[in-house]
Amino acid sequence: MFTLQSRQGTARRGRLETVHGRVETPAFMNVATAAAIKGAVSADDLTHIGCQVALCNTYHLHLRPGEQVVEAMGGLRTFMGWPGPTLTDSGGFQVFSLAKLRRIEEQGVTFASHIDGRRIFMGPEQSMQIQAALGSTIAMAFDECVENPSPRDYVLASCARTTRWAERSRAELDRQNAQRGAGQLLFGINQGGTYADIRVDHMRRLAELPFDGYAIGGLAVGEPAEVMYEIIEAVEPHMPQALPRYLMGVGTPDNLLEAVRRGVDLFDCVMPSRNARHGHLHTRAGVINLNNEKYATDRDPIEPTCACPTCRRYSRGYLRHLFKAGELLAMRLSVLHNLWFYNQLMAEIRQAIEQGDFEDYYRRHVQVLSRRI
Amino acid sequence: MFTLQSRQGTARRGRLETVHGRVETPAFMNVATAAAIKGAVSADDLTHIGCQVALCNTYHLHLRPGEQVVEAMGGLRTFMGWPGPTLTDSGGFQVFSLAKLRRIEEQGVTFASHIDGRRIFMGPEQSMQIQAALGSTIAMAFDECVENPSPRDYVLASCARTTRWAERSRAELDRQNAQRGAGQLLFGINQGGTYADIRVDHMRRLAELPFDGYAIGGLAVGEPAEVMYEIIEAVEPHMPQALPRYLMGVGTPDNLLEAVRRGVDLFDCVMPSRNARHGHLHTRAGVINLNNEKYATDRDPIEPTCACPTCRRYSRGYLRHLFKAGELLAMRLSVLHNLWFYNQLMAEIRQAIEQGDFEDYYRRHVQVLSRRI
Repeated sequence: MFTLQSRQGTARRGRLETVHGRVETPAFMNVATAAAIKGAVSADDLTHIGCQVALCNTYHLHLRPGEQVVEAMGGLRTFMGWPGPTLTDSGGFQVFSLAKLRRIEEQGVTFASHIDGRRIFMGPEQSMQIQAALGSTIAMAFDECVENPSPRDYVLASCARTTRWAERSRAELDRQNAQRGAGQLLFGINQGGTYADIRVDHMRRLAELPFDGYAIGGLAVGEPAEVMYEIIEAVEPHMPQALPRYLMGVGTPDNLLEAVRRGVDLFDCVMPSRNARHGHLHTRAGVINLNNEKYATDRDPIEPTCACPTCRRYSRGYLRHLFKAGELLAMRLSVLHNLWFYNQLMAEIRQAIEQGDFEDYYRRHVQVLSRRI
Repeated sequence: MFTLQSRQGTARRGRLETVHGRVETPAFMNVATAAAIKGAVSADDLTHIGCQVALCNTYHLHLRPGEQVVEAMGGLRTFMGWPGPTLTDSGGFQVFSLAKLRRIEEQGVTFASHIDGRRIFMGPEQSMQIQAALGSTIAMAFDECVENPSPRDYVLASCARTTRWAERSRAELDRQNAQRGAGQLLFGINQGGTYADIRVDHMRRLAELPFDGYAIGGLAVGEPAEVMYEIIEAVEPHMPQALPRYLMGVGTPDNLLEAVRRGVDLFDCVMPSRNARHGHLHTRAGVINLNNEKYATDRDPIEPTCACPTCRRYSRGYLRHLFKAGELLAMRLSVLHNLWFYNQLMAEIRQAIEQGDFEDYYRRHVQVLSRRI
């Protein structure tokens, strides 16, 4: 059950109650692709860095270890040792970005595994069956994510099919929930590339289906940030106010601030963990590059005011050494910091909306947080 | 200051008090080569897995980041965030095993860095200066570690030089301690290959020098385990009773039991962490291989009775998945378990000696712990 606690302009402070725990929104969901955070971060670490939702990828888990294994192990949360809510994507995005030799038909997509070339078919029914077996808190409808820009005709046809897939996703998850006595939530996904009118039409169609939340997909896949913000502004008025909104795969700290300001509640992105693994660390003053020689004997933590597990104990100089020496610990400590930073940013955004200070918070941070210093 | 608490036969229960904390012996020192445990394990993790001493490699730290950097960062313990005692080796072993193009002369060894080929000279004085700058609790004398077997004539000449290097190591560390107002401890290293008479002669010469402890080096480098045990038995009566004894680079759990039984107090080995990174996990029943298909849906922890951070939360099935998926988290969780296992083994050995049960403990475990099951 989603409830709005307070608003400031279009920005929303909400609360999503699930059978696996509460999610205070706006929230950043931490990406645990194959039921593990890249960089040797474990589920018990997530509880120490402010994570509310762990997001796993259906495509990856279907290929390895297979949803039957996860189900036999007690479902995703038991499998990975994470007690809180989880979200699985539909597999669609990876089918279109990672897999090879794909063929799209009305029924679904045939593709070759990027691991072993094995031919796999996935349509809305298969995606729902896999996600139901994984036992995530929130499942996502099966959709096609098109590149930006794509030809208008293609996007129109793709969106119509994604709508039909959304209907089939809803029907199949209803069957799965009934069979399993489960209450897995399902979010629909808006598509339409960079065509505002197609986006709006598609959103109106989706809103007629009984989803538990709505996502905007197919953004941050090549288009300028300004175009992304325009699309959010166009679509948002047509998203049900009473349900959570999720902007998929986004983004930089300033992307998050801009999108919260435009009414988005949920986010996920590999950027903070990927940045961290390359030595790019988030601070209040911008993103620092720990590979820089100037940090070699720097005894300060990444950010002196930060209370994350890394900043409480380790210096920039030590972390730089770990990167230079190729120690895996470099990645772990850096990922812990960057995820903490993102989760902490969302906590501050929530507080700012509650206190009516969000516009001020936005202005003080939006120009600063994402710059490289 | 080292004090013997109790003995059972030749096995010793001791306590080493250092300026950086107490070490209850027998103890296994956890290897943090470049000021980090391989497998994304950090200094704060060490405090949760029973580690008493972190061991770092002088050769690696000299090459990268350089001892000047570590010194500028406040010394090894501050640098890596480990509050307890540390031990640095002399660099000798790595010079002879990792470096290329080495030339040994009376003054020391010229070698090429395995990282960038840079020519480096290291003799006893350089090794002591580097270890003093690193600021370890215990430094090791500079020695030559010969292969087993090596020709008797070579070993004789090498041992004589290692004795002269031991004298120079002692003299240089005295100078360093005086200059720095430091109380860094220094252990001498017995060599002599597999020749018991050379070993005994060398040990007698070393015992005349005022070291704070004595190590047996140059074992577990090619000779059968039985030969290693015979050498320990030959040398041990000539090691000062009142000082700690350290068997370098050893070994399997049964090696540790056999060596404790022959009067050794301290150990170090990369084996538990290296085994862990390959999916070989230590249990009371022997070493299991998590890559085995039979663990795919095994919901038990590595060892059901184990209280390590990994076994408290994660299953064999999950760990196997992490290995198969190439997730770094596999290594971290496995290394935590294996190091806990080794540290816990030593804690049980200490208790057994205190209680006069060591022979019984030895008999129950020595045939079992190291077998592959």
